[in-house]
Amino acid sequence: RTLRIGLIPGDGIGKEVIPAGRRILEALPASLGLKFEFVDLRAGWEAFEQTGAALPEETVSILKSDCDGALFGAVSSPTTAVKGYSSPIVALRKKLDLYANVRPVKTVVSAPKPIDMVIVRENTEDLYVKEEKTYDTPEGKVAEAIKRISQRASSRIAAMAGEIALRRQKIRASGVPSIHKGPLVTVTHKSNVLSQTDGLFRTTAREVLADARFADVAVEEQIVDSMVYKLFRQPEAYDVIVAPNLYGDILSDGAAALVGSLGLVPSANVGEGFAIGEPCHGSAPDIQGMGIANPIATLRSAALMLEFLNEEAAAARIYAAVDANLEEGRLLSPDLGGTAKTEEVVQDILRRL
Amino acid sequence: RTLRIGLIPGDGIGKEVIPAGRRILEALPASLGLKFEFVDLRAGWEAFEQTGAALPEETVSILKSDCDGALFGAVSSPTTAVKGYSSPIVALRKKLDLYANVRPVKTVVSAPKPIDMVIVRENTEDLYVKEEKTYDTPEGKVAEAIKRISQRASSRIAAMAGEIALRRQKIRASGVPSIHKGPLVTVTHKSNVLSQTDGLFRTTAREVLADARFADVAVEEQIVDSMVYKLFRQPEAYDVIVAPNLYGDILSDGAAALVGSLGLVPSANVGEGFAIGEPCHGSAPDIQGMGIANPIATLRSAALMLEFLNEEAAAARIYAAVDANLEEGRLLSPDLGGTAKTEEVVQDILRRL
Ligand SMILES: CC(C)[C@H](C(=O)O)[C@@H](O)C(=O)O
Ligand SMILES: CC(C)[C@H](C(=O)O)[C@@H](O)C(=O)O
Repeated sequence: RTLRIGLIPGDGIGKEVIPAGRRILEALPASLGLKFEFVDLRAGWEAFEQTGAALPEETVSILKSDCDGALFGAVSSPTTAVKGYSSPIVALRKKLDLYANVRPVKTVVSAPKPIDMVIVRENTEDLYVKEEKTYDTPEGKVAEAIKRISQRASSRIAAMAGEIALRRQKIRASGVPSIHKGPLVTVTHKSNVLSQTDGLFRTTAREVLADARFADVAVEEQIVDSMVYKLFRQPEAYDVIVAPNLYGDILSDGAAALVGSLGLVPSANVGEGFAIGEPCHGSAPDIQGMGIANPIATLRSAALMLEFLNEEAAAARIYAAVDANLEEGRLLSPDLGGTAKTEEVVQDILRRL
Repeated sequence: RTLRIGLIPGDGIGKEVIPAGRRILEALPASLGLKFEFVDLRAGWEAFEQTGAALPEETVSILKSDCDGALFGAVSSPTTAVKGYSSPIVALRKKLDLYANVRPVKTVVSAPKPIDMVIVRENTEDLYVKEEKTYDTPEGKVAEAIKRISQRASSRIAAMAGEIALRRQKIRASGVPSIHKGPLVTVTHKSNVLSQTDGLFRTTAREVLADARFADVAVEEQIVDSMVYKLFRQPEAYDVIVAPNLYGDILSDGAAALVGSLGLVPSANVGEGFAIGEPCHGSAPDIQGMGIANPIATLRSAALMLEFLNEEAAAARIYAAVDANLEEGRLLSPDLGGTAKTEEVVQDILRRL
């Protein structure tokens, strides 16, 4: 099977980590029967300056017509609003209907306080519909934004969460050591205040997860503020957390803090038969060009993309190589307290593939 | 000066901690020249069952016409939407225009990793306007909520944050040991996605804090997801954090996790010349009636209320007595790993007053 992968480095360290993602895919053993073709694509601040569009039409159309998946680095946002500029990754998620943002957060098994959770974030609606307006009143300006929650989007994200919980359980059952006994989905919302919107998310998720195919999955709920509290007090208790877009955004950064660095945390933006791997970190202008960015979030994002393209064996190889590098702890980038360069970390992981 | 204080225990452990709040106020030394009168008021789930209103009209009118401040315990929310029930504290904040929710989160100075921050949360708008609607579409139900941000509310909450930063600096300057060198306000938002609403919050806060009276206050910004990440990675860096309502709600629970228990964290809902102290914890049905609730969040909330009623000397007495109890660490409630009953903790703190 040949997979065509779009490469969208974006800005800043995106340009340093996406090439590492390409190299690990190319280095996968031939015995897996996978071939890759790559297409270089543009998006981000530099693209905006050069072409007037943060997400050039061409990038979208090539991804749609010509690719099986993609790797997206990171983009720099202007610090003040700039006319015509808006976040290309948010647009991409909507244009390709990548309805799930999947963010596994996990320590190595031997960590003093091991955690192993996946945050499954709805990726197309909520406040991210970006329908805003501003008006004047005698007391000054007032701005409003719409938070939109649909049964349809809530239903498919809950089903995705349930399926991920089952898949994780299957991997455990195959003998992979785990801190979890059984599959658990935690539905996060704020329906005590937002009874209609978050209420719809909650009841829809409950209904979907009550289906017979999820009979083995335990389901519980957390109000989002309490979820953040629990995330830090007893993170080991959580397996799969499902949340509307904005809470998912916040929770995944919170969870990332638990494993020590955003530089370790991957994500995948997943739709029907298409997935974009995306490290959770930003473009990090402060370390850009220094060759010290942690490539692990991107390498894991490449693996996560493969998982959702049904190449689980290939994904497992990458995860294992990354884990081996971390378990040994000899070649670590500065965000993890080490002194290794991006290139050294990549080579160490390629060697273990 | 005689202060009339409304007591609203609410449900669950609210009924165990609010009496402790009353006792510490009554126990303040006469030399402070303060007298208290108390009015018992109802709100919450039990009130709803008894009177049909979670926030009886009488409670609001007595607070408005007859009180200088109040202590609010906690209320139990139904787990599924109940017709006619909605959160009384959210309603109270709006009806009394208590526009600031102030949440100091602080360890004892001798903690291995001391932190000392205040979260200043806007308390009247954002998604808490609770303007929601639901409609049917061919693809199922869709619900929408309004997130409203006004220049007026953003402006006064930013000014409050600036003033709190200056007041904290004054206390430090008087010789109280602190981990902070100078006053810092961190403006939290998500204007990279919500350019109009959070954009308005951000620019308004920036403008207000650029005023000459805040010349000594350093101002920086954090995107809310990144703020949660930083909160856990380097909490010691933050002094005053100002945020719209929902982010403030989430951040204050996150910050509470850092000090080990919600049972330690107070809040005050502050308006013009009026303040309601409110522990950040909930009604905790699991431990209700066992006499083991941690009273400290309520005692600190009583002190915080006094601060905003310009009784700083009285507030300082309560803070010092609580800190002394925690520094010694002998009589601690179970949430802090101890075995002391509520009553024992209260008596230990009263003794130190
Ligand atoms: C850059 C920003 C628009 C984005 C988001 O909020 O989704 C980022 O925080 C993320 O989590 O991918
Ligand atoms: C109970 C709930 C409505 C409330 C809120 O969201 O404001 C609580 O979480 C708080 O922080 O006081």
